[in-house]
Amino acid sequence: MKIINSVSDMQAFSKKEKLHGKKIGFVPTMGFLHKGHLSLVEEARSQNEIVVVSIFVNPTQFGEGEDFDIYPKNFHRDKELLEEMGVDVIFYPTVDEMYPRSYNTYVDVYKVTEKLCGASRPGHFKGVTTVVAKLFNCVLPDNAYFGLKDAQQVVVISKMVRDLHFPVTIVPCPIVREADGLALSSRNVNLKKDQREHATVLYQSLKKAEEMVENGCLDAEKIKKSIADKIKTYPQAEIDYVEIVNFDTLEDIQVLKGKNLIALAVKIGKVRLIDNIIVEV
Amino acid sequence: MKIINSVSDMQAFSKKEKLHGKKIGFVPTMGFLHKGHLSLVEEARSQNEIVVVSIFVNPTQFGEGEDFDIYPKNFHRDKELLEEMGVDVIFYPTVDEMYPRSYNTYVDVYKVTEKLCGASRPGHFKGVTTVVAKLFNCVLPDNAYFGLKDAQQVVVISKMVRDLHFPVTIVPCPIVREADGLALSSRNVNLKKDQREHATVLYQSLKKAEEMVENGCLDAEKIKKSIADKIKTYPQAEIDYVEIVNFDTLEDIQVLKGKNLIALAVKIGKVRLIDNIIVEV
Repeated sequence: MKIINSVSDMQAFSKKEKLHGKKIGFVPTMGFLHKGHLSLVEEARSQNEIVVVSIFVNPTQFGEGEDFDIYPKNFHRDKELLEEMGVDVIFYPTVDEMYPRSYNTYVDVYKVTEKLCGASRPGHFKGVTTVVAKLFNCVLPDNAYFGLKDAQQVVVISKMVRDLHFPVTIVPCPIVREADGLALSSRNVNLKKDQREHATVLYQSLKKAEEMVENGCLDAEKIKKSIADKIKTYPQAEIDYVEIVNFDTLEDIQVLKGKNLIALAVKIGKVRLIDNIIVEV
Repeated sequence: MKIINSVSDMQAFSKKEKLHGKKIGFVPTMGFLHKGHLSLVEEARSQNEIVVVSIFVNPTQFGEGEDFDIYPKNFHRDKELLEEMGVDVIFYPTVDEMYPRSYNTYVDVYKVTEKLCGASRPGHFKGVTTVVAKLFNCVLPDNAYFGLKDAQQVVVISKMVRDLHFPVTIVPCPIVREADGLALSSRNVNLKKDQREHATVLYQSLKKAEEMVENGCLDAEKIKKSIADKIKTYPQAEIDYVEIVNFDTLEDIQVLKGKNLIALAVKIGKVRLIDNIIVEV
């Protein structure tokens, strides 16, 4: 397994492999890998001759007062995990390498970035689309793997790829959960013990919503209220949003129809967690 | 010579050629080709195994009330010229192909886009950077050729390529002029006979500025005044701007130093013409 730090070395590697007709699968990450990331790597490994994983905590997607400085890191462990999984390259650039001096170019997707996490975290998705465009130009992948925990991110990146004609196929992968249902996240490590125990309320509220739909309830307001009520049973949980939207357009839904995304963001102490389920009607 | 209309066919063509190790040279144009464009094609032809020329009048780089609707077109003639020059592919997409329904993604370079033509034409460069990013993702070139008549465009595109790590080398090419000095432009055809004759005042004013610098004058204000005075000798000429800036940063210059861009935009009747010279001190 190679570790590549420079943009030009990364491009040279990928160009050479492509010249040999090799398909490149790419998993962009911010490191501190968990089984969610590893499921993406596994999927990439099974579908491509070359697998590249990037580890880059991207400053431009964090807002003022967000957790950029305390975002957990453990490169040594990440490296061991990826080596075991047969990854070919870790792309591990510095911030200065990715954002050279007097950097001033951004990729911006409008509308689908304005809701859900985009509304709570202004500028977040502009940072995400910009860095993903840059990473695509560094790694030159055929396929890129994104977890559905960040469902809005999947929608936004897919739209960017379509609108800018990036020659990349986006492969969305299912959420990986702990045994008790909590969606895996690098941020879970920042939860205190009792917070971690009670954080299961997020997934429980979503499962209850799913049951409501299965039992014939299609009223978005009723379902959202049920979710909020369930979350509020844990007093330390502070709801950022609970939304039900069309999965492709992220437009609000009153009556569930087609592919619906039920998504929530909740702060537990200082840790902001997100989770979602996709419900087809 | 192939004519390709769809994004996916264009990508498939380029991917296949790259697999064979062929270098792709790309000349993006809005058609109605003149010797300026053809000099870019010639340069591309001499440096690459495959040459792709795009013809696409990009609506997003024209502002309200600008000349999108009367922008001259002659695909049949363009095709003949490019065939003669041994071009491999004309990429000739429709607006709907390049901007699919509910399109909502833009590439934006800040700062260097805010001056000169960017100040006179708000949103113009956002349209340019967006369409060039899209065209790069369609054509997947190794080298892309841009004329220095649009000097700010060369600076802006070079910055976008650097900031987003596009794996493309930008090749700036010198301005091509008529025998009497007028810089070639597809818009020249919209000048009336007497306007065309007097339009030479633009280049004459720049040559005079160049002489001033050669004679030791480094005072930007004095040089700009000399240019403006010369242009004003033609009463139909309405100055949009006359600026002297650093060629890399496009920052204003008081005393000429290093690589200076002396640039102007002038409206003659309804036709907006630009011209410039680069003066090294």
